[in-house]
Amino acid sequence: VSDTPGDKVAIIGGGSWGTALACALARGGETALWVRGAEQAETMLRTRHNPRYLEEVELPQSILITGDLGLAVVDAPLIIMAVPARGMAVTTRGVSAVLRSVRGPGGRPPLVLSAAKGLDPETGRLMSEVLRDALGDRAVIGALSGPNIALEVGRGLPTATVVACNEGMRAEEAQRRVSGTRLRAYTNNDVTGVEVGGALKNVIALAAGISDGMGAGDNAKAAIMTRGLAEMTRLGVALGGRQSTFSGLTGLGDLIVTCSSPHSRNRAIGIGIGSGKSLVELEGSMTMVAEGVNTTREALRLGLKHRVELPIAEAVAAVLFRGADPISTAASLMARSGKAEIDFA
Amino acid sequence: VSDTPGDKVAIIGGGSWGTALACALARGGETALWVRGAEQAETMLRTRHNPRYLEEVELPQSILITGDLGLAVVDAPLIIMAVPARGMAVTTRGVSAVLRSVRGPGGRPPLVLSAAKGLDPETGRLMSEVLRDALGDRAVIGALSGPNIALEVGRGLPTATVVACNEGMRAEEAQRRVSGTRLRAYTNNDVTGVEVGGALKNVIALAAGISDGMGAGDNAKAAIMTRGLAEMTRLGVALGGRQSTFSGLTGLGDLIVTCSSPHSRNRAIGIGIGSGKSLVELEGSMTMVAEGVNTTREALRLGLKHRVELPIAEAVAAVLFRGADPISTAASLMARSGKAEIDFA
Repeated sequence: VSDTPGDKVAIIGGGSWGTALACALARGGETALWVRGAEQAETMLRTRHNPRYLEEVELPQSILITGDLGLAVVDAPLIIMAVPARGMAVTTRGVSAVLRSVRGPGGRPPLVLSAAKGLDPETGRLMSEVLRDALGDRAVIGALSGPNIALEVGRGLPTATVVACNEGMRAEEAQRRVSGTRLRAYTNNDVTGVEVGGALKNVIALAAGISDGMGAGDNAKAAIMTRGLAEMTRLGVALGGRQSTFSGLTGLGDLIVTCSSPHSRNRAIGIGIGSGKSLVELEGSMTMVAEGVNTTREALRLGLKHRVELPIAEAVAAVLFRGADPISTAASLMARSGKAEIDFA
Repeated sequence: VSDTPGDKVAIIGGGSWGTALACALARGGETALWVRGAEQAETMLRTRHNPRYLEEVELPQSILITGDLGLAVVDAPLIIMAVPARGMAVTTRGVSAVLRSVRGPGGRPPLVLSAAKGLDPETGRLMSEVLRDALGDRAVIGALSGPNIALEVGRGLPTATVVACNEGMRAEEAQRRVSGTRLRAYTNNDVTGVEVGGALKNVIALAAGISDGMGAGDNAKAAIMTRGLAEMTRLGVALGGRQSTFSGLTGLGDLIVTCSSPHSRNRAIGIGIGSGKSLVELEGSMTMVAEGVNTTREALRLGLKHRVELPIAEAVAAVLFRGADPISTAASLMARSGKAEIDFA
């Protein structure tokens, strides 16, 4: 029956995360992967690999790889936007244009999840706000986030992730479609909290990387991560998120993996800075986007607006953008700290 | 004036943590280190090293190293018990006997902090309860805890720690004595929360180590740590601790460092188990105590008593004590998990 929603998932974006997700979700049903640029689509179709972003993983034959947004999105009740934050607005407007002409399955609008972990570089908005602006009432909006190193998901290592959406039934539908034996999805109705956690943890990962680059040790890094989670939580609660979300997979869990994995780009930038390299030099040598650099700027703007203190983000900004010395910045951060451990509220 | 409390600290226990603490606290004033066994005391006095437990760090000349409890404790307003949980009761009874004959400085009872991160193996009690039983009204009781790898503290790497005591003025006095340029102390009046965090994180570190030993990846480990913190928090709140304490340095912070440091003994035991070795074999090859093995047993007893579910501790117990297969145990743990991320309360 054409009115029953099928199991198709459209993944928009052929970077490392989009590609890895496609591999994982192909096990559970029809999966399309939209890739920007005819040449990259052609290479991936021919070689069944993504040489630029996820070289070592073989892409299942069943994935529909395409450069055509309409083909990717048609008949998909679930669309996952796996593009960097800075490309989210323009790519989503493309999806929106396609949705204008193709009716959702069963007449229902599709669920569109942001899988980006950053803030809009021009406006500082959350990705869900960017999606809402571009899609209007053509879609239900949410986020997919969690401690999800792409390469591990691509390899089929066990992973937990979170589908965030304030319409419970749609969240649960997506949860069933995303879950498999290796990838386990939870639901959460706090979209804002999930998004703030995913974005802000990159700022703390920069700080943790700087600490690692300086050789400050594991005690220091654990202290940065602990105070960093408190900082993420304060901002998230001010923006309307729930405190408990930050103690979950999309807050604490993602913070842990991003601050410890050798595959974390934000941590890698931090390590470079901590060992004396410049941001310009480091960004020039990367093929992938480190969202944390931009998120640091936007987070500080949000902090000012909502009167939330973000001492670690401020220290990262001083080191990244104003050439402050990491060692003396860390020392003053330590000297600044309060005398009693305090609550977030 | 003899009625003014001096700055002497007595550290009871010459293991890696006691020795590292003595090195850090010697920078701030008079410091005594009590070592069990005349031979070890003599070696440490002669070589100014602790070859067995902290080989590479040189001990400052100013540390009074002694095998005599009376000499160590006399005139010390602050006593730190840095012995393993299983030795806490007997060693503290020794301190108590000494305190019967030496009056505290200024006539005040000394503050005695437990620096052990475990539960009493015979009774499952918290270390503060063991101290209270042995010391009665001869001392004010508290705990010293945090993300504190001994070797890093011994080397002078930057570290944050927490003095827990429900008498605020005594906590702040100890905070001032413990703090230096490299070691920064916070206060917390939730002694129970601090103690439960310090003990339970070793159980989660065993689980994280098993995951690492199996090669399950960083996503899986982050999920274990996240759900593990929720488990620690549930038990801690049931025992009277404060939820926010578990998000701080002594909960989350210590969990992070213990699950990631190559110097963590509990994680090392886990890695061995995850790669197919037996507990008997692993414990035989260690000179130091891995508190988590015993804490797993005691935590499950406490969970039963207070009706708190501890799925990760149960899985660790199945693997450690009943020879369950780590892979199928992990799989059933993953299958068991709820569908929505939930609050601790």
